[in-house]
Amino acid sequence: MAKDKPSKLKARMPRGFADRGPAELAATRSMLETIRKVYELYGFEALETPFIEYTDALGKFLPDQDRPNEGVFSFQDDDEQWLSLRYDLTAPLARHVAENFDRLPKPFRSYRAGWVFRNEKPGPGRFRQFMQFDADTVGAPTVAADAEICMMMADTLEALGIARGDYVIKVNNRKVLDGVMEAIGLGGEENAGRRLTVLRAIDKFDKVGIAGVRDLLGEGRWENPAAKSGDFTKGAGLDERQARIVLATLDGNGGVSATGEGVQVEIAGDVGAAAALVSSDSFRQGMDELAEIARLVKAAGYEGRVKVDPSVVRGLEYYTGPVFEAELTFEVKDEKGRPVRFGSVGGGGRYDGLVGRFRGEAVPATGFSIGVSRLASALSYLKSAEQPEFGPVVVVVMDRDEAAHYMGLVAQLRSAGIRSEMYLGNPKNLGNQFKYADRRNSPCVVIQGSDERAAGEVQIKDLIEGAKAAAAITDNAEWRESRPAQFSCREAELVAKVREVLDHHGVPHGAALG
Amino acid sequence: MAKDKPSKLKARMPRGFADRGPAELAATRSMLETIRKVYELYGFEALETPFIEYTDALGKFLPDQDRPNEGVFSFQDDDEQWLSLRYDLTAPLARHVAENFDRLPKPFRSYRAGWVFRNEKPGPGRFRQFMQFDADTVGAPTVAADAEICMMMADTLEALGIARGDYVIKVNNRKVLDGVMEAIGLGGEENAGRRLTVLRAIDKFDKVGIAGVRDLLGEGRWENPAAKSGDFTKGAGLDERQARIVLATLDGNGGVSATGEGVQVEIAGDVGAAAALVSSDSFRQGMDELAEIARLVKAAGYEGRVKVDPSVVRGLEYYTGPVFEAELTFEVKDEKGRPVRFGSVGGGGRYDGLVGRFRGEAVPATGFSIGVSRLASALSYLKSAEQPEFGPVVVVVMDRDEAAHYMGLVAQLRSAGIRSEMYLGNPKNLGNQFKYADRRNSPCVVIQGSDERAAGEVQIKDLIEGAKAAAAITDNAEWRESRPAQFSCREAELVAKVREVLDHHGVPHGAALG
Repeated sequence: MAKDKPSKLKARMPRGFADRGPAELAATRSMLETIRKVYELYGFEALETPFIEYTDALGKFLPDQDRPNEGVFSFQDDDEQWLSLRYDLTAPLARHVAENFDRLPKPFRSYRAGWVFRNEKPGPGRFRQFMQFDADTVGAPTVAADAEICMMMADTLEALGIARGDYVIKVNNRKVLDGVMEAIGLGGEENAGRRLTVLRAIDKFDKVGIAGVRDLLGEGRWENPAAKSGDFTKGAGLDERQARIVLATLDGNGGVSATGEGVQVEIAGDVGAAAALVSSDSFRQGMDELAEIARLVKAAGYEGRVKVDPSVVRGLEYYTGPVFEAELTFEVKDEKGRPVRFGSVGGGGRYDGLVGRFRGEAVPATGFSIGVSRLASALSYLKSAEQPEFGPVVVVVMDRDEAAHYMGLVAQLRSAGIRSEMYLGNPKNLGNQFKYADRRNSPCVVIQGSDERAAGEVQIKDLIEGAKAAAAITDNAEWRESRPAQFSCREAELVAKVREVLDHHGVPHGAALG
Repeated sequence: MAKDKPSKLKARMPRGFADRGPAELAATRSMLETIRKVYELYGFEALETPFIEYTDALGKFLPDQDRPNEGVFSFQDDDEQWLSLRYDLTAPLARHVAENFDRLPKPFRSYRAGWVFRNEKPGPGRFRQFMQFDADTVGAPTVAADAEICMMMADTLEALGIARGDYVIKVNNRKVLDGVMEAIGLGGEENAGRRLTVLRAIDKFDKVGIAGVRDLLGEGRWENPAAKSGDFTKGAGLDERQARIVLATLDGNGGVSATGEGVQVEIAGDVGAAAALVSSDSFRQGMDELAEIARLVKAAGYEGRVKVDPSVVRGLEYYTGPVFEAELTFEVKDEKGRPVRFGSVGGGGRYDGLVGRFRGEAVPATGFSIGVSRLASALSYLKSAEQPEFGPVVVVVMDRDEAAHYMGLVAQLRSAGIRSEMYLGNPKNLGNQFKYADRRNSPCVVIQGSDERAAGEVQIKDLIEGAKAAAAITDNAEWRESRPAQFSCREAELVAKVREVLDHHGVPHGAALG
């Protein structure tokens, strides 16, 4: 190719994609490994589905169109059928379960980690390829399965080093939300738009508090309510009684609640409002389920870590029962430097209809999805002083005709489990070799010129000690050479002496290969 | 979705894709981890590039066409630019290096593991999504970099449990092959077709031996040469002297060879033929490089594991120097039950032009790519008796009102690091719960009815012991109940007693969570 096309190509990536280097990959790898171990402990088993599925299996055709949703990357196979890159890990699981229904143990617990793709306008911090880590239980009809997955998420966050009290797994129920909408007369297809405005108001509870939600349910809300300035968000236009019902479910001071002790529905001074709520089958059933979850969570010792919270509104259309949100409660600074809660790192819920699309009967299922990059960024906030990552020991090339001998030295170091390499660039300029070692953050370099070779010796230059010395000189402080940064030793002692340098600085080196 | 579309979807995967279950995933994970450790030891660092690249960056436009090669999955972005799923891990590396050239240490050693996609007709054992594990050194011009990568492959195979002697890393040189073609008068664009036929003949050396290659270089070869029956492969039509030159490079009995001691070119009874070879610059340079590789490999103690082998022909157009092939030499049965060598599990070579496409100057680079599924299947041949994979301990549900209490038992087991779960299906039928435990290959189940609950006890049923007992009875052998398959204990002893059962059968269980 290079010969045929002398014109220079531009090296660039499509928008919304990114390369990932060693530090990020190591952090992600260790995180995934920890999550995996917790999921295995809960009896979930590994599953991987392909990146490409039939578009219809993903449910990604727009109504009345024969082209897939623009939000997914799609292309036609040679038989004209539409294929898409997976958009999440739930739709492929539903396909897998339906395809292997009779073969799988039921309930079927599985976990899946992997990249998913969204063909959306990328923006700052928004990617078109990102990683999810999901766990799902298919075939378990009771809320015990929902409770279990929430407890597993709590254990996962703690296993990752997030302290108890720094997170909460919030649980609500789609049925409760549906019941509230019925009770305030917003059921039915024709009220879909207003329902959405009400749900958006509830969703803002964490940020704007009860007074803010009240404004959003009524006329609307100013960004700075006191000064009536900033952006104005138009409200849902509910009347007072409608708003009272919604607010009663949110305020948390008794009134409407589902706990391990049972369900309570009281609205101060408005018996009729309480009666309207309780008359909804959906509401009652949802509240009973939440109370049962609270009871199970308490019995297993997860009270306070998994909490019923009526402000959780998960967007996805396919949820049919309990919905979950994993929230990190510690504070970080927002883009304007103000302290804010870190917020959500994942969520999920019960989706009894998704597998059923393939089987013509409802199949109960519930699951949780972790946003891997989001969680990784949370963990990086919690990490204190970043450990420097050391590179390999570099054997410099003083004499290019001795490459074979240098390679023998490197082979000795490696078979002792010491990360090392011979310099492979042009060896002419010794300065470049040292610059390379600095750039790789090498702990030390091994030097052998013809004199040392003849005497059966090698020089070891300790770059970490050297950097300290240089820093001391720069700081104009008194520097006593308590430890020489460069010393020589017998070639036969090479491995032992390099080990000493690494151990002195706490640089890890593994056991011998094999 | 389920509500809007009552019509039943078919659950199916596109051809050439596959789901992967826990056993395969665990084997692959441990394999990738071992490879990663060896690469790290050699100073290579992790890199990941996205799955989607600009099609032109992958070099996947056919000449004189404005649509991408059909072999890649491609689609247009919303700005009409063509995007493709990556086809291998080398082209994206070249893009990455060119894009970050000034920032990267050079030589730049990196490794990348990941899925690649080929939009080809899938067949038995041929997939459209498969995994590669690559290591590449960019910016190292000398063959020391090639030698190093070959030694690293040898170490990798041994670290994976392939015995010394059961594999060989074969090295040839594209320049040597080019030189041989020149020497027999097949240089130049107009001979591309015949060159390919000659290369294909050389590539068959392992299978058909020297006599077979002679036939393929001449008139052609019958599948069963003795009977002159089976398929006939038309030959390259070389004359005797041309064939003699090619065969001399292959036969290995001295004559034409490159070793740690140097280069030798002698063709018995044909001084002119040897002179024709040596007069090719490309041939001489290639042979010198092979001799230098042999010298380096010997000095580092890898002689016999990394071997110069003139029959290696790697197909990819972009190779410019040394080419490698990792071959497993132990025998397996082919589809007709005949013993054959397992064969290639990866390969690579030097490609000095690929990064240069972006920079307008050649950038030296060399790399090796492991076919992960192929190597995994090799390792599964070597594994002796497969260890059974045990599932979780199952706490059965005798009384559905006690779910909270059962969940507390499970939480105890889990916090002791014992993989366990409460049965989450419909508990009505106890038989189904035991069937489920069997299907999950559970080592034991925990049972607590109302009587045991009242007495503060649990029953533990050891399913492994139970299966042995059942087998003994089926075999009609004498079964002495030296170990009861079911016993009861105090609820407070649950963790200790389950641990005893697991330890007795060698079922692993981890340390406590957190």
